[in-house]
Amino acid sequence: MASPRTEPADIAPKATGRLLIRDVSLVSPAGVVERNQHIAIDGTAIAAVGEEPEGFQPDEILDGRELLAVPAFFNAHCHAAMTLTRGWAEDLPFDRWLNERIWVAESALTEDDVYWGASLAACEMIRSGTVGFADHYFYMDRVAQVVAQSGMKALLAWCWFGLGPDKEVGGISFATTEQFVESWQGDAEGRIRTCFGPHSPYMCSPQALKQVHEAAERLGAGVHLHLSESGEQVQQSLKEHGRTPVGHVAALGLFAVPALAAHCNCVTDDDLEILARNRVAVAHAPKTYMKLAMDMPPVERLLAHDVRVALATDGPASNADLNLLEVMRLTGLVQKGLQAKAEALPIAQLMRMASRNGAYALGFASSGKIAPGAAADITLFDTRGTHWRPRHDLAASVVYSSHPADVRHVLCDGRFLLRDGRITLLDEERILYEAEKRAFRMVGAPMERVRSYPS
Amino acid sequence: MASPRTEPADIAPKATGRLLIRDVSLVSPAGVVERNQHIAIDGTAIAAVGEEPEGFQPDEILDGRELLAVPAFFNAHCHAAMTLTRGWAEDLPFDRWLNERIWVAESALTEDDVYWGASLAACEMIRSGTVGFADHYFYMDRVAQVVAQSGMKALLAWCWFGLGPDKEVGGISFATTEQFVESWQGDAEGRIRTCFGPHSPYMCSPQALKQVHEAAERLGAGVHLHLSESGEQVQQSLKEHGRTPVGHVAALGLFAVPALAAHCNCVTDDDLEILARNRVAVAHAPKTYMKLAMDMPPVERLLAHDVRVALATDGPASNADLNLLEVMRLTGLVQKGLQAKAEALPIAQLMRMASRNGAYALGFASSGKIAPGAAADITLFDTRGTHWRPRHDLAASVVYSSHPADVRHVLCDGRFLLRDGRITLLDEERILYEAEKRAFRMVGAPMERVRSYPS
Repeated sequence: MASPRTEPADIAPKATGRLLIRDVSLVSPAGVVERNQHIAIDGTAIAAVGEEPEGFQPDEILDGRELLAVPAFFNAHCHAAMTLTRGWAEDLPFDRWLNERIWVAESALTEDDVYWGASLAACEMIRSGTVGFADHYFYMDRVAQVVAQSGMKALLAWCWFGLGPDKEVGGISFATTEQFVESWQGDAEGRIRTCFGPHSPYMCSPQALKQVHEAAERLGAGVHLHLSESGEQVQQSLKEHGRTPVGHVAALGLFAVPALAAHCNCVTDDDLEILARNRVAVAHAPKTYMKLAMDMPPVERLLAHDVRVALATDGPASNADLNLLEVMRLTGLVQKGLQAKAEALPIAQLMRMASRNGAYALGFASSGKIAPGAAADITLFDTRGTHWRPRHDLAASVVYSSHPADVRHVLCDGRFLLRDGRITLLDEERILYEAEKRAFRMVGAPMERVRSYPS
Repeated sequence: MASPRTEPADIAPKATGRLLIRDVSLVSPAGVVERNQHIAIDGTAIAAVGEEPEGFQPDEILDGRELLAVPAFFNAHCHAAMTLTRGWAEDLPFDRWLNERIWVAESALTEDDVYWGASLAACEMIRSGTVGFADHYFYMDRVAQVVAQSGMKALLAWCWFGLGPDKEVGGISFATTEQFVESWQGDAEGRIRTCFGPHSPYMCSPQALKQVHEAAERLGAGVHLHLSESGEQVQQSLKEHGRTPVGHVAALGLFAVPALAAHCNCVTDDDLEILARNRVAVAHAPKTYMKLAMDMPPVERLLAHDVRVALATDGPASNADLNLLEVMRLTGLVQKGLQAKAEALPIAQLMRMASRNGAYALGFASSGKIAPGAAADITLFDTRGTHWRPRHDLAASVVYSSHPADVRHVLCDGRFLLRDGRITLLDEERILYEAEKRAFRMVGAPMERVRSYPS
């Protein structure tokens, strides 16, 4: 399968101008709300924060008096095109959810479906203040195309089921995933990063995981996989390999390259030490865990062990949406509740997990903070809404009462992906229509369903 | 303290017209999404659902093709004016939250503050599809005024601390609460209902609770109280009274009148039987429980015992907002997670808890369903948003991915409280300004905070 790099015409143009956001409130790298600040952006990076820099001649000035600037969010584990099966498998136990619904629908999946499903996901993520996502799915060339066009950033991995050295489960060979990693690495002005996507230690043999490690080392790429999702998986791994899933994967060398592990719901202290020592990023997706009745990891314990926990939605078929605002909120609420500790996971920490830790997980080291020299990845909230009043604590409003509709502008590398509530670089109206049409076809729903709703 | 009934000029006018909502999708009383329906509304009630009734001459026709109609929501336990301390006490353990923050701010509370704080709450509730609320607070005449003006419905109780027969803790006498119950009962065309509001069995002596029961029987009114919020309270009650809080309150006769019990987080099977037999409505507020690290009740077990569980936010100082959409979502997610049962609390049941069970808790028997003869209390969602696509299951979208900004129209007794996203009967812009100004004064924040944000 070919992995065409993007044509220049297919890439959203690089930001080259100078933007000044005046008199804005912002969340500082220390997590403090600072008022009446100026943010000067030059090209793709933040040039200054605080005072207006001398001699800075902006091409555009944005009045920030009613806005709050926060570091834009990064969704650390996602199957973006699963927007197509959102709402198609409700209130079902996990095995029925998967076997009777998701796999049946996905058996009809085409690469065009992935393109439109991921385009829908891109619109939804941008609208909720997210500029980057770690995607793990099929037909990833088409997801890369969406990233190039949308102006977003992404870490992309072709999901690979390595159940034997010669098998091509799921329709693709290891060579295809390798070619994808190599071909798209650094594309779209560096906004696309690629890595290997072995599904998990229970869907990949030790041999296959070794193969992944060797290829990743050779290409200087990382890995993104599902890990330790349930107590059952841990028991099975101990029985088969004499190690926990985390220990097993580490022993096979997978953590010698940059690693992103989705979930890690069931972990021992030894596991946490391995994850911390190897600087593995862990993607935490609490809405999916609750909706599918999976185990909930003890997030504060992970953080206490210096594990880098980022936030994620997982796919919209389980999570219902792609809204990291809600994931921040749920992470805080659930951990406070489970630990019976209202001071657990304070607001600044939740915001850092959604932004800086997410950027780390995706490999965008200069993103995740509003500071001179950082990438100009900024989400601007409109603070005028009824549910924001009184404005005692704007950061608390973001985490505990804001909604995607409060996101007014989104900048990625200094370019507007959302401006005044409108998606700038994608044809959202067409995407809504095309994605919905394909989603109905996939599940065998009558087309009148589409026609009866004007798009 | 006087309890003036409302002047006619102060009451939002009764709906008298005929409205036809054409080609709308709706959630039926059975919880099923039905498409291409007509809803005919005559005055305050629903005249017909399904076909357009013969001879019905509407004054207005609403195009429903992009809308989903659901029974409007009822917030079963709330301290509305606590919008004023939203965001003022974050990430603190309960005792510090209460003693160092909330009580300090509330010590400066005036009756005007309550009026503006409750007005802000009314706007926020209407914007999230809620038409009724059970309020339990101070200066309740002023809350009643807000209900009259806003067009909403409410069950209002003056919070009373009955720690001794002659004590007037909290500044009001029992006679004041009694006068309030009597004076406002049925006001504003029946949209205002009143009841007694003894704080809780731990803040009211048995003597005081008996007094409440006698007065409630005499006036034909009910009670609304906090009950069994923690295991500690249960232990204390067993020690002092030889009964659980539920058993204790029942033995004092309080369940012989219509009763609304907030929380019931820690309950025995015997408690559940008492609650069910006496048809006590239980208000469930999971966001507050998690945010303040309180115990979480086993909702499905309550429902299995036929206890009428309604949904609630509690006050915005603990809940951060007044959004029942989120409470539905959290109720489903948390119970699925806690029980490790993805099929727990299906979507239709969550919607019923937010609407019909809430209407029952407040005493509005004809509300909570879209059916001929029912009160025309309807929330209309715009289904065009990005996060609604594909529209496989509109009810799932409401519960698991919708936001207040998706609520386009809200009808209460056939009258628009929200039309095309605008509050119709209240001066929202002034409310935002006045409420914020008072909130900043209460917490001693500098007034520049207000002035620096244009309202």
